[in-house]
Amino acid sequence: MGDPIVDAATAAAAAALLPTTRDQRAAWLERLAAALEADRATLVALAAEETHLSEARLDGEVTRTAAQLRFFAGVAREGAYLEAAIDSPDPALIPPRPDLRRMLRPIGPVAVYTASNFPFAFSVLGNDTASALAAGCPVIVKAHPGHPRLSRRTAELALDVLPNGWFALVEGMEAGVALVQHPAVRAAGFTGSERGGRALFDLAASRPDPIPFYGELGSINPVIVTRAAARERGADIGAGLVGSFTRDAGQYCTKPGLVFAPSGEGVDDAVAAALGSAPASRQLTDGMSAAYAEAIELFGADDDATVLLGIDHPGASVPAVVLTDAAAFIAGPDRFLQERFGPVTVVVSYRDEELPAVLAALQPSLTATIHRGAGEDVTALAAALTPIAGRLLFDGWPTGVAIGWAQHHGGSWPATTASIHTSVGATAIRRWLTPIAYQDAPQDVLPPELRDGNPLAVPRRES
Amino acid sequence: MGDPIVDAATAAAAAALLPTTRDQRAAWLERLAAALEADRATLVALAAEETHLSEARLDGEVTRTAAQLRFFAGVAREGAYLEAAIDSPDPALIPPRPDLRRMLRPIGPVAVYTASNFPFAFSVLGNDTASALAAGCPVIVKAHPGHPRLSRRTAELALDVLPNGWFALVEGMEAGVALVQHPAVRAAGFTGSERGGRALFDLAASRPDPIPFYGELGSINPVIVTRAAARERGADIGAGLVGSFTRDAGQYCTKPGLVFAPSGEGVDDAVAAALGSAPASRQLTDGMSAAYAEAIELFGADDDATVLLGIDHPGASVPAVVLTDAAAFIAGPDRFLQERFGPVTVVVSYRDEELPAVLAALQPSLTATIHRGAGEDVTALAAALTPIAGRLLFDGWPTGVAIGWAQHHGGSWPATTASIHTSVGATAIRRWLTPIAYQDAPQDVLPPELRDGNPLAVPRRES
Repeated sequence: MGDPIVDAATAAAAAALLPTTRDQRAAWLERLAAALEADRATLVALAAEETHLSEARLDGEVTRTAAQLRFFAGVAREGAYLEAAIDSPDPALIPPRPDLRRMLRPIGPVAVYTASNFPFAFSVLGNDTASALAAGCPVIVKAHPGHPRLSRRTAELALDVLPNGWFALVEGMEAGVALVQHPAVRAAGFTGSERGGRALFDLAASRPDPIPFYGELGSINPVIVTRAAARERGADIGAGLVGSFTRDAGQYCTKPGLVFAPSGEGVDDAVAAALGSAPASRQLTDGMSAAYAEAIELFGADDDATVLLGIDHPGASVPAVVLTDAAAFIAGPDRFLQERFGPVTVVVSYRDEELPAVLAALQPSLTATIHRGAGEDVTALAAALTPIAGRLLFDGWPTGVAIGWAQHHGGSWPATTASIHTSVGATAIRRWLTPIAYQDAPQDVLPPELRDGNPLAVPRRES
Repeated sequence: MGDPIVDAATAAAAAALLPTTRDQRAAWLERLAAALEADRATLVALAAEETHLSEARLDGEVTRTAAQLRFFAGVAREGAYLEAAIDSPDPALIPPRPDLRRMLRPIGPVAVYTASNFPFAFSVLGNDTASALAAGCPVIVKAHPGHPRLSRRTAELALDVLPNGWFALVEGMEAGVALVQHPAVRAAGFTGSERGGRALFDLAASRPDPIPFYGELGSINPVIVTRAAARERGADIGAGLVGSFTRDAGQYCTKPGLVFAPSGEGVDDAVAAALGSAPASRQLTDGMSAAYAEAIELFGADDDATVLLGIDHPGASVPAVVLTDAAAFIAGPDRFLQERFGPVTVVVSYRDEELPAVLAALQPSLTATIHRGAGEDVTALAAALTPIAGRLLFDGWPTGVAIGWAQHHGGSWPATTASIHTSVGATAIRRWLTPIAYQDAPQDVLPPELRDGNPLAVPRRES
């Protein structure tokens, strides 16, 4: 054994050269899902110990992670993701058109930097790994230091299922830095902080041969409650908000961290009332708890803000609501726009005439939410939020990111480092693929997906 | 009037906020095509003066450029490029699935850095501009200093057709540097040298908010002639090669710059024979001619290389063939892998057992070409070239890049800065789009392409 990065990268590069079929990879993904489920009890117990998340939540996350793996098995089997297209020859065109056949091919070995807050769904066998394997790319996972034993145990499952070279786990900050710079690594996925993501993005971009770096960096997830919505169901909205931002100690990248409530409609009172019964939970790491306490202190020292605290428990982070108003927000938005991991949200009371200035001060986010009155026309508000929202949702809460073909979990900087791609949903696979066009190729050279007669019956465009 | 970059970016940012329909933009593109054709005689004369390319070639390029504009009008009208997808709600899933509707939206103002060697097709109204307008993105073009008057005249046509803010032309190196760093610019396209492209890519990546930079940097475009092909039609291959690499003074990014010919089959003799009747042409700029002369001198001083020269003409660059062998190539590939603008190619004589080492020394390219014998099995050779080829072609020459749905003009570094996208073909539009997902959205907020009943009848996935 030499250097673990070099060993893993060399093996991955060799694996990447051996062709696999979509069916083979789909079967791997299904076996990984089954392996996770078979080891569920041990994994959940280990995760609970290392992350302080509840067993119920972790059990659900195992189910989600297995569902993701199976979902990407389906994506691989169907083959639409290949974007197969055939142009028939046409010598009359200017320029003349030969026989052209295009599809996507795996980009090569992928580095996956895992998240602390989803020890299954965005970790060793999470979305990035599932989508990269579906695409046909060997994966080298950088374990998150927040759950090292769980990472190793999950990695053992992966190593049992996957052929040699298709999976490796590396640990430690130094390994992470070396990984994104290794010549064999062709792309990287990351879920984590803006600071860490930016550092790795910079390394990826400054390579002699730059590689794509897909970083999901987190988000403030603004919510706008219209006056009509507040009048219709202000109490429900207040309770719903508290449920969402305190869920699992407020450690979701989709946590609603900044809520605009119309002045004088009592949404703040409803929030305050719901806060009294919100649970205090222990955060993922002591470092996070300390950063959370510091943030609450900072808000407390802000003359423009009032901090309401929920019930405290020893060792837990106390739920908190920061109340301020639109004038204060507009005068100094930065203090309210920074993501704070933990059970806190900022509620900004606004008068209707202040809304345009409020909207102008927002920055891109993974999600934006509108709570509207029944039948209320919110098209203008939606249009204003469209450029800054990866996902725009209505009358609900952004926590909970469903799996599907129409999901998008992304957004412009600072939500991600690569706004045109997603880290959740079927199209997450596109990050690990690169096109190739075959011109006047003999049938036996073509991948079966591009051969005459479409023998594998993949969705295909022919023109 | 203030700073031209600030003015252009401010106007583009304002234009980007006003919604347009796909039909509107398609009509603009068609009017731009017609405007180009109507001004053809003047444009061609101006281009010939500034670029020294032949009027016949330039006339054909106007036709191509108009065809590109109309092609992207069709892409916009059809709407498949939106990748519209709808997931119906399913509360039984884990996690539960709401109503999710995803499509692509314009990313915002786009900077286009034009090329010297295609003063129409990759310049002011070229592929990048056409695809960005089709996507719904205002365009700011940085003119190439090689054809300033043509650029200005083409820009006038664009300004006549396009609404305020949708198009601007800026000039000068300083403007180019400022453009890619301007906060309103959301993506950039570039066709040019590795050095220039890398410098702009680094600026784009080091912004406080990094933006995608799509640089097509050129290529060596390796060609492998198999022994069977050489025996069957070595003379034709030699003549075809000379025609391809000397075409328009050898100034194509798809010029075959490195050709592997089997030893002892006479391909080199055929090349030498054809070289005698190859035209000498004036290059685009004096700087390029000087760089070309220097490159030929460098090859001449290389003990491992023999330089054959074609017929010289005053003021023109003389066509040249550099002969070497696989042992020399393997021992020092870098000197032969650098793209040389001008009518020169390197012919490497190889023995069959040297081919694996030759292939291992290659680097990614926009194209790779195989000339094979009739019915010859070249699957292993094709598999070896697949990871390094944007387009893999057979029994032809890479110059000439057809327009279509199945085209790909890209490749891994150093062919481009962004290997997962293309600068030619329908999917070039994907570079200027970013996804948005709507969750539980009211019908009137949704773009028509995502509404119930699919009123605009766009291709759409529903699940």
